[in-house]
Amino acid sequence: MEVQIGILGLGVVGEELAKIILENKQRLKEQQGIDLHFNKVFVRDIAKKRNVSLNPSILTTRSEDVTKNPEIQIICECVGGEGTEQTRKMVQDSIQSGKHVIMSSKKVLAKYGEEILNLLEEHKVQYRYDATVGGGIPVTKVIRECFKGERIKKVVGILNATSNFIYSYMESHNASFGEALKLAQELGYAENDPTEDIKGYDSLYKLVILTTFAMGKSVNIEKMSTQTFEDIDLIDMNYAKELGYRIKPLAVVEDNFGRITYRVGPCLIHKTHVVATAVSNYNVIVLEGENSGNIGLYGQGAGSKPTASAMFDDLMSVVHAHFNEGKVDLGTKISQRKKVDHYYQYTNNLYWRYTVDNKIGVLAKMCNVFMNYGINIEKIIQKDEVHGKMDVVALTHSADEITINKIISELSNDQIAVVKIIPFF
Amino acid sequence: MEVQIGILGLGVVGEELAKIILENKQRLKEQQGIDLHFNKVFVRDIAKKRNVSLNPSILTTRSEDVTKNPEIQIICECVGGEGTEQTRKMVQDSIQSGKHVIMSSKKVLAKYGEEILNLLEEHKVQYRYDATVGGGIPVTKVIRECFKGERIKKVVGILNATSNFIYSYMESHNASFGEALKLAQELGYAENDPTEDIKGYDSLYKLVILTTFAMGKSVNIEKMSTQTFEDIDLIDMNYAKELGYRIKPLAVVEDNFGRITYRVGPCLIHKTHVVATAVSNYNVIVLEGENSGNIGLYGQGAGSKPTASAMFDDLMSVVHAHFNEGKVDLGTKISQRKKVDHYYQYTNNLYWRYTVDNKIGVLAKMCNVFMNYGINIEKIIQKDEVHGKMDVVALTHSADEITINKIISELSNDQIAVVKIIPFF
Repeated sequence: MEVQIGILGLGVVGEELAKIILENKQRLKEQQGIDLHFNKVFVRDIAKKRNVSLNPSILTTRSEDVTKNPEIQIICECVGGEGTEQTRKMVQDSIQSGKHVIMSSKKVLAKYGEEILNLLEEHKVQYRYDATVGGGIPVTKVIRECFKGERIKKVVGILNATSNFIYSYMESHNASFGEALKLAQELGYAENDPTEDIKGYDSLYKLVILTTFAMGKSVNIEKMSTQTFEDIDLIDMNYAKELGYRIKPLAVVEDNFGRITYRVGPCLIHKTHVVATAVSNYNVIVLEGENSGNIGLYGQGAGSKPTASAMFDDLMSVVHAHFNEGKVDLGTKISQRKKVDHYYQYTNNLYWRYTVDNKIGVLAKMCNVFMNYGINIEKIIQKDEVHGKMDVVALTHSADEITINKIISELSNDQIAVVKIIPFF
Repeated sequence: MEVQIGILGLGVVGEELAKIILENKQRLKEQQGIDLHFNKVFVRDIAKKRNVSLNPSILTTRSEDVTKNPEIQIICECVGGEGTEQTRKMVQDSIQSGKHVIMSSKKVLAKYGEEILNLLEEHKVQYRYDATVGGGIPVTKVIRECFKGERIKKVVGILNATSNFIYSYMESHNASFGEALKLAQELGYAENDPTEDIKGYDSLYKLVILTTFAMGKSVNIEKMSTQTFEDIDLIDMNYAKELGYRIKPLAVVEDNFGRITYRVGPCLIHKTHVVATAVSNYNVIVLEGENSGNIGLYGQGAGSKPTASAMFDDLMSVVHAHFNEGKVDLGTKISQRKKVDHYYQYTNNLYWRYTVDNKIGVLAKMCNVFMNYGINIEKIIQKDEVHGKMDVVALTHSADEITINKIISELSNDQIAVVKIIPFF
């Protein structure tokens, strides 16, 4: 069965999505009988050099060639951050032309979610938007599939990777907000104009999308505001740490049977809370349901690969829902499944604990044994002596079971008793 | 459209599932036209008092009344841990009678996954099993929906809530494994015979299910083994901590293009890794895909409510895939959506930082101001003096914006400058 796809925009995300589609084309045809075709792709500059090989004849600079093209069934919107009004128009046109839509522009969805929902209901097309929130984190898919019999009461998360990178760097390097922002810009984690990220607008867009779609509430972003993430000093991070907390760039929304409480801004959060543990450019989102309890989702918050991957999963979801009805998808067919007969134990660096007599030369003997078997010792720590005996902890590179057993036996000849061996993850 | 449901087993999970179905029955009929009916329920004892009101005439002690009942379309298997062979037979009968199956028994699925997959392919029925792994964590749903264009390379997680509770308690209370196990049994987190949990078998069942279904590999559980979780002493936990690591009851599987490497047993894992942060009876699972990067899932690993909730979501997934084809499900209809016009700022305890002159009486003045507005102070910390000025950090109960502004103004009259106010999450 043939599926005709249109793509709006061929920037980093659009290009990555086109690549993933091409990589999976053959497999999908063979395993599921789904034949994906690029029909038309809207770009701003046809002559631009691309990292994906598409037939130049399908490129167009007129978005209507995609959005109003009668052959196209599914449209993937990868327009990116600029041109909110233009993107809104393209999405409207697509839905009004009866096309299923996969979206990536969070700002358009946050501002015009209500309008888009109305159009969807009227034109009865499928719609997915997982790439708008949380990058590679499948939060809207989880909401779609996992809260069918219960209300979502609360959502809390770090929805902006840039500000989380900045806060994490401030903490780990005793840097000021400004210094950390500058580094984020140098590394490409923050844009030249970082306003949307550091003022909390980007987080608010995502929070509004979650409130609209996960909680089913019609909210008006014009009436909502943020507390800027910039307004944090290192000294407060240090004081918070002394109290057992971390300061994080949070977004929170609570639905108390229709009463909507929210905050986008810096918050103190207990260091053991899963949201406090999201480091660097990671995002984390915790959904609180009535029966499921807290479900936390953790992953890379940005990047073209995770985002394009989320869009491809959305695309397949629409294809299965609309073009492949009732077909059972068990993944790999039994006949094509690889039968595994050999299993390998996961090995990694090892933690060894010994008990030894506190005598001169014992450590040297131990090191010699490891050296003879070609096992590197990374660290040796001697603990205090108790009644002439002492604990020694050694961290070594990995070793197979046969070697480990030989080492244990040689060490025992030297009166060194191996008490425990535990691998590192 | 009517859907006839059969339930196998009415223990804690079955009962909870029946409750959730009853709670959602009316809404599903009104909003989606789906009419769920209990047709027959297999129980061991008809006379037993139940916490859910079902018509006694639908209870039966013969499983065939459910599995081979021509009226029933979907079967929810909630048999629980006992009677592996009996459960296997019931699942076989159900599939062979052409029924869609929602499973909860991990042991049966881990041991006979291959056989079940063959039957599913032959009889072309739908199948879901999210309740078998991770309790309320929707790991198999995420795998089903989110890795359509990429290979899962690695899975690492804490899949057994009981042993994670034991390890967490050992660490936090300097307790031995035996002491922590005893407490877990008293609190109902561990069974009287804890073998399956603490020897790692329960984790291995789940790991095998993930390998079979997420990685699409046919593995043979009889050839796989575990390292027992019991074999950990507190002293190793403490030594690991000094090194920046934690010891956790891990399950790991890696698919290196067909070469399967795995381990179920204690591991050292860096304290900042998201898996190391799962406390108490929580589970955490990290899936590593080629494009998505690491996706972490965190949630309650056990409990009848999260498990039943996972089964209900599975049930709705089958209903939508098989009985409601192509219908667009936008969640709450536009006309029924609540319009939100008032937004409340999330409030909670507050962190205040002041700069004050280091003079006698300053702290007393500050406390008086808060007292006058009825705001409790939980903690006040004075920092070191620098050039006659010092920082004071106060933690107070929540206050609204008007009160906060009045307090700031009164304090400034007393030469106490409020530098920063940040709420707690």
